[in-house]
Amino acid sequence: MRPFDIIKKKRDGEILTSKEIDFFIRGITNGEITDYQATALLMAIYFNGMTEDETYHLTYSMMHSGEVLDLSDISGIKVDKHSTGGVGDKLSLTIAPLVASAGIPMPMIAGRGLGHTGGTVDKLESIPNFRTDLSLREFKETVKKINLSIIGQTSEIAPADKILYALRDVTATVDSIPLIVSSIMSKKMAEGIDGLVMDIKTGNGAFMKEFEDALELSEGIVQIGKKFGKNVVALITDMNQPLGYAVGNSLEVIEAIEFLKGKGSDDIKNLTLKIGAWMLKIGGITEDIEDGIKILQEKLKSGEGLEKFRELIKCQNGNPEVTEDYNLFPKAKIIKDVISSESGYVQKIETDKIGISASILGAGRLKADSPIDYSAGLILRKKIGDYVEKGEPLITIHTNLPLPLLIKEGSEGRSEAESMITNSYIIGVNQPIKPPLIHKVIT
Amino acid sequence: MRPFDIIKKKRDGEILTSKEIDFFIRGITNGEITDYQATALLMAIYFNGMTEDETYHLTYSMMHSGEVLDLSDISGIKVDKHSTGGVGDKLSLTIAPLVASAGIPMPMIAGRGLGHTGGTVDKLESIPNFRTDLSLREFKETVKKINLSIIGQTSEIAPADKILYALRDVTATVDSIPLIVSSIMSKKMAEGIDGLVMDIKTGNGAFMKEFEDALELSEGIVQIGKKFGKNVVALITDMNQPLGYAVGNSLEVIEAIEFLKGKGSDDIKNLTLKIGAWMLKIGGITEDIEDGIKILQEKLKSGEGLEKFRELIKCQNGNPEVTEDYNLFPKAKIIKDVISSESGYVQKIETDKIGISASILGAGRLKADSPIDYSAGLILRKKIGDYVEKGEPLITIHTNLPLPLLIKEGSEGRSEAESMITNSYIIGVNQPIKPPLIHKVIT
Repeated sequence: MRPFDIIKKKRDGEILTSKEIDFFIRGITNGEITDYQATALLMAIYFNGMTEDETYHLTYSMMHSGEVLDLSDISGIKVDKHSTGGVGDKLSLTIAPLVASAGIPMPMIAGRGLGHTGGTVDKLESIPNFRTDLSLREFKETVKKINLSIIGQTSEIAPADKILYALRDVTATVDSIPLIVSSIMSKKMAEGIDGLVMDIKTGNGAFMKEFEDALELSEGIVQIGKKFGKNVVALITDMNQPLGYAVGNSLEVIEAIEFLKGKGSDDIKNLTLKIGAWMLKIGGITEDIEDGIKILQEKLKSGEGLEKFRELIKCQNGNPEVTEDYNLFPKAKIIKDVISSESGYVQKIETDKIGISASILGAGRLKADSPIDYSAGLILRKKIGDYVEKGEPLITIHTNLPLPLLIKEGSEGRSEAESMITNSYIIGVNQPIKPPLIHKVIT
Repeated sequence: MRPFDIIKKKRDGEILTSKEIDFFIRGITNGEITDYQATALLMAIYFNGMTEDETYHLTYSMMHSGEVLDLSDISGIKVDKHSTGGVGDKLSLTIAPLVASAGIPMPMIAGRGLGHTGGTVDKLESIPNFRTDLSLREFKETVKKINLSIIGQTSEIAPADKILYALRDVTATVDSIPLIVSSIMSKKMAEGIDGLVMDIKTGNGAFMKEFEDALELSEGIVQIGKKFGKNVVALITDMNQPLGYAVGNSLEVIEAIEFLKGKGSDDIKNLTLKIGAWMLKIGGITEDIEDGIKILQEKLKSGEGLEKFRELIKCQNGNPEVTEDYNLFPKAKIIKDVISSESGYVQKIETDKIGISASILGAGRLKADSPIDYSAGLILRKKIGDYVEKGEPLITIHTNLPLPLLIKEGSEGRSEAESMITNSYIIGVNQPIKPPLIHKVIT
């Protein structure tokens, strides 16, 4: 078998066998197949796609390129929740403690911020000393002990994905459904879970801007999950404005804690309960969604969700007192309102620009290896449908960088973070209809 | 400008600007753009093609990635001839001396054997001490002195093509018309020529098996040549059987010398005169093809063509006495007939298999860096339309390897070179119509 023949076969629109796919993935993982052959195949896959079987085999080979966790000695149906990424999306932090407190073992290997979106791992690391780098053994022990652990991607899980993703990122081969499906599912299937709820974001702050693309991805993920014999549900949820109000690492953790104290915004509450209820259903705790919502509401009310979050922090070396004293989080020196230059209803928020603005303020990585300022970010003061007076704040920024922030936009010129924020708000005369939170559920 | 954006643009079917193409080619040449980004772009070009303008810009940038010869101080219209490669194709050796003797300055940078096809440079190197590695200065001086020089590809001419070709070869991106056109023409335009006659082979021994593909390539090459302000003509010629009778390096040189002595086969004679006559027309010596043929026939009859070949050998450090004493060539120890197992007319010859058989016997490279046995090869005893009796020889093989030759075919199994030869002859009852030599001329 030669890499050349496999590339040519896919180039010519033929269907690759499981052996061919496995040969390629093994070769990429052990370095026997060159990067330049890998990217040629990736581009051919971008153009000619993959059948459900090919995508399954690709996922399978990538999953088995590294360690596959065996959690069979943890009793119960293990369920994870995974989001394709958004702005202000702190749902993992709200859902995981609640669902775990309701009896579902949740082994969660989460991601870091990517592009304009934030990442659960970065957010948790804003809690002083919180360890997201537990060994797989510690991870498993923690799930066994408290029904929950959240760690970052490790080099042992699906190393082929890490190699391929880095190549896709620089060769314009990220947005291919079979490649996205296999990337997500190879890592999730290696976690040793029994079920998965996927939160597929769509809208101007998501990677999938169009509903149709989100639908195709959702169907792909659910299909592949079924082929692995797992119970997978995908919810297509709205990302046409940030979730909740906070964008930025410690700011979002604080917002998640406030939610667990019963003081969350409607969108966070609604999505947390619905997604969480699907997890309870998959996990065999309830038969229907309404029952699940009730259970989670009780866990919220009783404070068991908050207590589970404190347990998580403690088990992963953090200080659980952060939930009671927000001064234990790093604080930004500069807190400043960005005000509206006109009056009217917020029609639209260019959510990806909000995400980029937060990154510029220090919350994200402008380069892959740049450090994060955990205290930096922004708080939305107005969301879609809200009325704003000229001179009223749209957003409050938190940063340690000197203002005004001059930033490079590509190599074309310079712009200010504040004007980027102002420009991302579209204000008009009529009150708009708010976008629905959940567009579709695919089972 | 980022390589990513250029790849994405081509992936999305958009048209690249000259600046973007030049940025990419410069980056590939100086190592600033990675191989894996290059192959992703190549695959995107394979799928989405290139406009005539893009192909021109690509050719221009590749041409200027290295040295561009200035032959303006050599008087006359400089014309080159280039073939896309075939089996037994020794036409450069027959045409170049004749045309040069008729007054056309011919700077020829030729190729080596590739796949199942032979290469002019390898053939010339079968002449003891013949130097194909003249410096560009020596090359130019030789053209100035005797109207002719033939050298191999140098690292100074179009280095971007060398890098891209090596990548295309292993990523199934060779067979793309804009990539083939730019590869050929970037090197030819860097030679400093005024005109070019392209011999585009089609048939089962060519890289372009289908006439339509050969036609598309021919039109592409003629168009790009015109954009460079050069006079370019393409002849689509038949490669459904080897040209002449000899396949293998010294065997082909001897056949070319025999032709120059007036003893050539009809196909070699016909194509040499027609292609040569087009060169005389482009070179401004004649107005029409028939006049050119007459001039070349005279040069053949007078022995001036042979004399020019002897001059070439002498100027490039070889021994011109080889034309009179074939024993000066290396000789194969084993010369053996491969006989026919049936009687009938030769219907078809699987020409690529004949080329591969010659390679196996030692005439070609089975691996990129393996040495060539200049004496090895084969002589066809029967061609299409010939009658063969059972037991009569089809081919006489020349080799220094022990017989029977057990060779690996891919990794699937083992086969004998002799049975490969026998199998490549399709013999039947009726006398077939011989294929035409020239399918079409594109001006």
